[in-house]
Amino acid sequence: MDQEFASSLLENAVSAFASLPGIGRKTALRLALHLLKQSETDVVAFGEAVTRLRREIRYCKVCHNISESEVCPICASPARDASTVCVVENVKDVMSIENTQQHHGLYHVLGGLISPMDGIGPQDIEIDSLVERVAAGGVNEVILALSATMEGDTTNFYIFRRLAPYPQVKITMLARGVSVGNEIEYTDSLTLGRSILNRTPFTDTFASQ
Amino acid sequence: MDQEFASSLLENAVSAFASLPGIGRKTALRLALHLLKQSETDVVAFGEAVTRLRREIRYCKVCHNISESEVCPICASPARDASTVCVVENVKDVMSIENTQQHHGLYHVLGGLISPMDGIGPQDIEIDSLVERVAAGGVNEVILALSATMEGDTTNFYIFRRLAPYPQVKITMLARGVSVGNEIEYTDSLTLGRSILNRTPFTDTFASQ
Repeated sequence: MDQEFASSLLENAVSAFASLPGIGRKTALRLALHLLKQSETDVVAFGEAVTRLRREIRYCKVCHNISESEVCPICASPARDASTVCVVENVKDVMSIENTQQHHGLYHVLGGLISPMDGIGPQDIEIDSLVERVAAGGVNEVILALSATMEGDTTNFYIFRRLAPYPQVKITMLARGVSVGNEIEYTDSLTLGRSILNRTPFTDTFASQ
Repeated sequence: MDQEFASSLLENAVSAFASLPGIGRKTALRLALHLLKQSETDVVAFGEAVTRLRREIRYCKVCHNISESEVCPICASPARDASTVCVVENVKDVMSIENTQQHHGLYHVLGGLISPMDGIGPQDIEIDSLVERVAAGGVNEVILALSATMEGDTTNFYIFRRLAPYPQVKITMLARGVSVGNEIEYTDSLTLGRSILNRTPFTDTFASQ
């Protein structure tokens, strides 16, 4: 759309929205015009929510998850198993795993994956701090819960090597297999192969899920 | 997603984005996390662009289009034909019609369509001001460029009746017909019927478009 906007205020707001991932200028214009119809209080609250998010956000100094206090509620909880640390790429992954209610340990948020193509090296993400946590003792297991992609695999392998000096720490990774609800016919052969190699004893509990 | 956010700052930002049309909580979270990765300057600029848009926006006192001055550049332009007024629903429609470069007159932005279902009556949109413009004289033609929907038709008819006391003013509407590039086979019969009734002389210019 090579449209001239009647106002630079509108132009600025449209450009701001269009800078967000997955939002083109057409959608951005729709969002801006929507906000114009809302009450001034609501729109000012919107602007402030965005500004404050970036200005005032803090990260847990232990696991680097988003937090309102110096140490996040998960790291601070006596109910969590501090000897098991689950390594994830970002804050969203913490939420996804918390949703499963299957992990009772702590987290370590890397803030990205090693990706030479994008110029992201091991120094750019929270790997040193992970090694420090392990070196400090008290960690028995590190669960690598990274994406099953080239970048995830690279990062897994790098962390695995960095943690080699601590053989008492068990390093595990998420099981790869057929997704629940997926048909065998449509499962890719790599995943299917892995799911045969890593087959598990059949129990009624699993069958009913 | 019934997720607990680690921070009320994040929660607020996600709720703000999720209040926009077409953006669910999952996308809202993605947008908020994207902003967290951007520089503070950029994010503050984003927040301000939104806030200022709503706070400082002004509307042309003649046509009600978005404007930075009391009278918008279109209404103020001596190059435009002030005797032809094109009635549109909203600001986006002005942009769409300006893009065609086929309208050389002025506009009148209603700011909505009559829609009893949504509780929008003639008093809620800029119809009185349109009638005043026509009553003040100098307008020879009013082009009704509203959507081909129930609401558009209702509004067209209402405006037509309100302008009945001014028989010297010609009231026209956009041509209905087969869209350029559309196949006859897939054109609905109402549109096809209208396009036969309103057939136009064949010229080489049209054929090549």
